[in-house]
Amino acid sequence: MSAGSEPQAATQPFFRSRWVAAPTHVRELGLDAGLPAGFRAAGVAAGIKASGRTDVGLLVCDAQTPASAARFTATGTPAAPVQLSRERCRLGALRVVLANSGCANAATGRRGLDDAAKTQGAAALAAGVDPAEVALASTGGISQLLPVDAVLKGILQAREQLRRDGDTDFQQAIQTTDAFEKRANLELQLPSGVVRLSAQCKGAGMISPRFATMLCFIETDAALAPETADLLLGVCVKRSFDRASVDGQLSTNDTAILMCSGASGVGVAPESEDELRFGEALDALLRQLAIMMVADGEGAGRIARVVVRGGDLQGAEAAARAVANSPLVKAALHGGDPNWGRIVQSVGGALLGTAPLAVDVAIEGIQVCSAGSAIPYDEPALAQAVQRPEVEYEVGLPGEGAETEVFFSDLSHAYVTVNADYHT
Amino acid sequence: MSAGSEPQAATQPFFRSRWVAAPTHVRELGLDAGLPAGFRAAGVAAGIKASGRTDVGLLVCDAQTPASAARFTATGTPAAPVQLSRERCRLGALRVVLANSGCANAATGRRGLDDAAKTQGAAALAAGVDPAEVALASTGGISQLLPVDAVLKGILQAREQLRRDGDTDFQQAIQTTDAFEKRANLELQLPSGVVRLSAQCKGAGMISPRFATMLCFIETDAALAPETADLLLGVCVKRSFDRASVDGQLSTNDTAILMCSGASGVGVAPESEDELRFGEALDALLRQLAIMMVADGEGAGRIARVVVRGGDLQGAEAAARAVANSPLVKAALHGGDPNWGRIVQSVGGALLGTAPLAVDVAIEGIQVCSAGSAIPYDEPALAQAVQRPEVEYEVGLPGEGAETEVFFSDLSHAYVTVNADYHT
Repeated sequence: MSAGSEPQAATQPFFRSRWVAAPTHVRELGLDAGLPAGFRAAGVAAGIKASGRTDVGLLVCDAQTPASAARFTATGTPAAPVQLSRERCRLGALRVVLANSGCANAATGRRGLDDAAKTQGAAALAAGVDPAEVALASTGGISQLLPVDAVLKGILQAREQLRRDGDTDFQQAIQTTDAFEKRANLELQLPSGVVRLSAQCKGAGMISPRFATMLCFIETDAALAPETADLLLGVCVKRSFDRASVDGQLSTNDTAILMCSGASGVGVAPESEDELRFGEALDALLRQLAIMMVADGEGAGRIARVVVRGGDLQGAEAAARAVANSPLVKAALHGGDPNWGRIVQSVGGALLGTAPLAVDVAIEGIQVCSAGSAIPYDEPALAQAVQRPEVEYEVGLPGEGAETEVFFSDLSHAYVTVNADYHT
Repeated sequence: MSAGSEPQAATQPFFRSRWVAAPTHVRELGLDAGLPAGFRAAGVAAGIKASGRTDVGLLVCDAQTPASAARFTATGTPAAPVQLSRERCRLGALRVVLANSGCANAATGRRGLDDAAKTQGAAALAAGVDPAEVALASTGGISQLLPVDAVLKGILQAREQLRRDGDTDFQQAIQTTDAFEKRANLELQLPSGVVRLSAQCKGAGMISPRFATMLCFIETDAALAPETADLLLGVCVKRSFDRASVDGQLSTNDTAILMCSGASGVGVAPESEDELRFGEALDALLRQLAIMMVADGEGAGRIARVVVRGGDLQGAEAAARAVANSPLVKAALHGGDPNWGRIVQSVGGALLGTAPLAVDVAIEGIQVCSAGSAIPYDEPALAQAVQRPEVEYEVGLPGEGAETEVFFSDLSHAYVTVNADYHT
């Protein structure tokens, strides 16, 4: 962040984006508060990263009948750990996550799947669970083979260090180009009692393949049925990680996993007030994490939200993603330039066959374009508004109906430096 | 062009890309050879551009029964001149093109259409033709109203300067951020006789809205029926301007117009050998111009072609455009970095629901990925190959069938500078 907020400052609240309302029943605990009851974690340096930094993480749920849910990248070229987790795990009853950074194990074919399976088996043995209860997640360079021996060594080391407050080390083990930590420890006041909710997240953008991936691991000591966990995770991922873009590049390794130990004894029943409140907290948690990922997008200096209203959902979605992924809009955002012609252009480019499209555009509440045509506006006010660290664009399409949003970062010299100037 | 060829050098042949074969029946004439018989052009400085540079161009075909054809941007938010030309012109019998730079007359609504109509009427009066025979083309800033008085003044000035070798000034009138001229004067040996073919083209990339647009005007003294002109222009645009991307941003103003005076007396009949040869020349001309636009893409230092083979056409097309528009692939191209994991990632991101996709990747003929999996390759040779000014990526998808290509430029610091650091 060369402009805008400074997410590193420990004194900042976790819920700090204007686009996320902190639920009133949620209390922020410190980053050293440890994991919810029933969870232990560890992170160790196993030698995968050439830098020698922490690169293997182990997350264990000690509950006898845990519930869990998972979501993965939609890419056609998923990494081996994604394929293995999706196809061979009991995703509703996971007990262990084995994560590594420094190697994505992607584009590694049959050999990559075999390597992943070996580490899955080893983690299962080390934790005393069934291999199908061990999810895998990797992040790092695409095309390199997984150094299996290093991972196995890491598993053995990590097993000895598993503890409630191991989330700090675990977070380190999943980070790559992240400039700052993206994690939270929360306490939720539900009608049926108090529960904990924690998350560790990595991602310097939607994706940058060399240091691929967004990963997010969420733990709670609330007791949820697997179906409830799956429903809530699905809805909240759609409203958070699915709405964030740094460069519009889908990863081979994206993974989000929610694990529920039930150790608090507080149950979250389907369609209950507990479920509503838990869902609100999970939603706010994942949205704030997604926005933090965008703010940590490679080279990001300023972030934005584009809200598209009107038309049908498919058109609104296409328009929102076109604005968010337009290098011209992103460059203008970076320069603090109120160049709204680029918004009209990117929307028009996404909605072929609609000409002439009566599009409305407002920036920070200042309307600049009505029904496809420029209108007079307060130019100094707009020039001031686009200097803010979080800028909001609103696009109106003809007709009632759809509404969607995408969070995105700017396009800076630093992005080019990160992605062009350093060689593989 | 900070690396690669130097298109400015007058000694260079026009057909200089490895991706365009100069037809053997085509001879390159000098840039001062003038327009084909039956055409006159002019370009003047009318005060639209703040810089005071040439900004209004007039192109006139003196034939009694000219034939023509036109193609326009597919955007949902077309500029006023595009709407007017498409809806109110006899596109098969155009006699005049009125072009201006310095203002795109886009996002200007009803007023923009009225302004365009005024200039169309004035050009028609000045040239002694029907308004429906006058096509309009504008390029420049989106959202600003057209300075009609300046354009009218420019029309009067330009009318006095119309001449066969006015294409040099006309070219200046349509350029904006172009770093070098993109035009050609060719002589074609057809079975039925010798004809001339000229083109003037502008575009620093697919589009950059502030200085919007690609425009291309093509003149021949061959005699073509409007249907033949339309067929040939349509096919050749699809293989050239439709396959070029600088930043994946569709313009509000893209326009390509072919005008045929017939003054040579050489007819190009449908399905004749003449048509085949004329089509070959037009194809080579437009492909070379499209590649020159990409090479002149804002900040471009290196250009590339991605060829996708296999699968169905929709999938191949999506994959090719995803590679060409990936900021990660483009940044790697800029850095001369053989980071082919980004190619796999961008193809996978474009082809959802195909996992695991057995994709092949080769760079400059060196295969690096087979059936989705890394294979050993000559790394020093690849590192050398990606330093070339024109780099070729080949992607193979499962199954026989489709084949497509996209030309694209890299993502450089200069692109960010052009689009972020200069304010509107």
